[in-house]
Amino acid sequence: MANRIFNFSAGPATLPLPVLKEVQEELLDFRGQGMSLMEMSHRSKTFDDVINEASALVRDIMDISDDYKVLFLQGGATGQFAAVPLNLAVDGKTGEYVDSGAWAIKAYNEAVKLEKPCRLLASSKDSNHDHIPTDFSVSEDAAYLHICSNNTIFGTQWQEYPRTGNVPLIADMSSDFYCRRFDPNQFGMFYGGAQKNAGPAGVTIVVIRKDLLERSPKNIPTIFNYKTFAEKNSMYNTPPTFAIYVVGLVMKWIKSQGGIDKVEAANRKKAQMVYDTLDASDFYKPHARKNSRSLMNITWRCPNEDLEKKFVAEAMELNMSGLKGHRSVGGVRASIYNAMPLEGVARLVEFMKDFERRN
Amino acid sequence: MANRIFNFSAGPATLPLPVLKEVQEELLDFRGQGMSLMEMSHRSKTFDDVINEASALVRDIMDISDDYKVLFLQGGATGQFAAVPLNLAVDGKTGEYVDSGAWAIKAYNEAVKLEKPCRLLASSKDSNHDHIPTDFSVSEDAAYLHICSNNTIFGTQWQEYPRTGNVPLIADMSSDFYCRRFDPNQFGMFYGGAQKNAGPAGVTIVVIRKDLLERSPKNIPTIFNYKTFAEKNSMYNTPPTFAIYVVGLVMKWIKSQGGIDKVEAANRKKAQMVYDTLDASDFYKPHARKNSRSLMNITWRCPNEDLEKKFVAEAMELNMSGLKGHRSVGGVRASIYNAMPLEGVARLVEFMKDFERRN
Repeated sequence: MANRIFNFSAGPATLPLPVLKEVQEELLDFRGQGMSLMEMSHRSKTFDDVINEASALVRDIMDISDDYKVLFLQGGATGQFAAVPLNLAVDGKTGEYVDSGAWAIKAYNEAVKLEKPCRLLASSKDSNHDHIPTDFSVSEDAAYLHICSNNTIFGTQWQEYPRTGNVPLIADMSSDFYCRRFDPNQFGMFYGGAQKNAGPAGVTIVVIRKDLLERSPKNIPTIFNYKTFAEKNSMYNTPPTFAIYVVGLVMKWIKSQGGIDKVEAANRKKAQMVYDTLDASDFYKPHARKNSRSLMNITWRCPNEDLEKKFVAEAMELNMSGLKGHRSVGGVRASIYNAMPLEGVARLVEFMKDFERRN
Repeated sequence: MANRIFNFSAGPATLPLPVLKEVQEELLDFRGQGMSLMEMSHRSKTFDDVINEASALVRDIMDISDDYKVLFLQGGATGQFAAVPLNLAVDGKTGEYVDSGAWAIKAYNEAVKLEKPCRLLASSKDSNHDHIPTDFSVSEDAAYLHICSNNTIFGTQWQEYPRTGNVPLIADMSSDFYCRRFDPNQFGMFYGGAQKNAGPAGVTIVVIRKDLLERSPKNIPTIFNYKTFAEKNSMYNTPPTFAIYVVGLVMKWIKSQGGIDKVEAANRKKAQMVYDTLDASDFYKPHARKNSRSLMNITWRCPNEDLEKKFVAEAMELNMSGLKGHRSVGGVRASIYNAMPLEGVARLVEFMKDFERRN
């Protein structure tokens, strides 16, 4: 792969090269079945193995107990923003939300739009979401607390998840799914669109505690009904078979790296390299406060917009793409998901230093 | 591809081999971008080209005018069963439905479940859906008429679409999407999960007349909102990029075959070969009535269940898979979508005759 680029895109994002190679190798003939995985009935024994293997790996990597179900759904986090209140904000209970950034507030706004009881507990909007708001208390009788574990746009991440007692904690982990060890038992549910850290776009992984499945009302869109999909092993209708298969390969790759602790260690090392460079510089100005820094998305400004444009353009010439910051923050954003090799971060850091010297 | 099987599965189903080969070839480096299509930002120029090319081909192949929008959504027909009444059954108007089979009635049941005004006009249930019911009249003030254009399970297909005057006609075309020429202007909307005749599982193609977009209420799940997705060129959130790309390749393949009329002619020839064999036999008993026969899914019984099992097993030994009928009909089902080569149907027909002689 002489021409492979270092892809710092926020998502869809870089995937492990061994995963892509395996997909390529078995694309025309999957496991000797004489057809592509894409052509295979989801009711076949072979695909049943594929989805069960993917599910078992999602479970195994994070030591998820039998109290939880793993679902593969469609529609990304946007779909879940509707599904969460439709399934879980029932019996007049109120869903509570923390606004740590653009996607976190979209989740809340969707509950408002659907006229479900909901309440915003805290927001970091006043400081352009440069930190995770932690000064709030969950109501004892809330339906759930919803957070976004990592804010792709702003480069912030919950360092410790809030304690919610008996209130189910729900996290959108789309941009830091399985980037670090956590205790799954502290969650009622966590979920993520796969396309940043877990696979290709087109599948949403939902891990939900079984007792919460009993909340799902009958009169909601079937495609959103957690209970229905749990009972049907995610195959009430045709699932996104190819995307689920690739998620399984990515999970297998995490295992091959030595598991979640090794992947976390690598992620911490990579992020530290960039943050150290930012902290040693007067030229670059990081957006996120130190106590809220993300392992996955690192955001910073250069002294002016012309230099930012130049930074992104020169990086591209060095085969580093996707570094332009989101318009909400501006500047530069380096997304360094699990699959970004250390070598890519090393090249970025070297370039950052060189660029600073020259400008 | 010495070991490539003839895959008669109802869906996900066989894809054109040139499409699979192109996917394989450019899997690691898409259009010289140094990354896989799967890894590419949906906000990139390259992916923008991909989705626009796919959309233009969907449009071009069926001569769809600028009065219509092409959308790429998620959730399959099951998602649309909810989206249709949520977007279109507004202002107290009633959605009307025809029950021609399992999926057609699911569409109706979903509207019932969501407590939207709806009415069932006709059903072929009493004869186990062996024909398309045509004895009904649409109400003049209906919100829409919803039909399922092809019934995968039963092997029936609308031969002529109903005339609905000013009432928008909506068709779920999941299992016969672009298998034959039709006039798009007779539809308010048609849609299909790609995984049978248009691509891999995980993307739903929706073609909708622009004036209907004005019906979409604000207080429905955003992921279902046709207007929102039309305004955002299907990229309100991350779309299923890989599946859309493959749909584009399948559409390109249709063009390469000479367009929809040539594909239709090939489909008619293939279906005729099977129906002729059935009609010349006292051994096989076709399920669908002659006036409702599908070009895509052909269903029949053998004299007894043991022979049906034997038929399916022996076919498998001859590299023909997926022939087991759905439990609702039993027996044998041959799904012969656009991508099934004539050679596959020839082998099936030869085997049918041989099997009949021997049993």
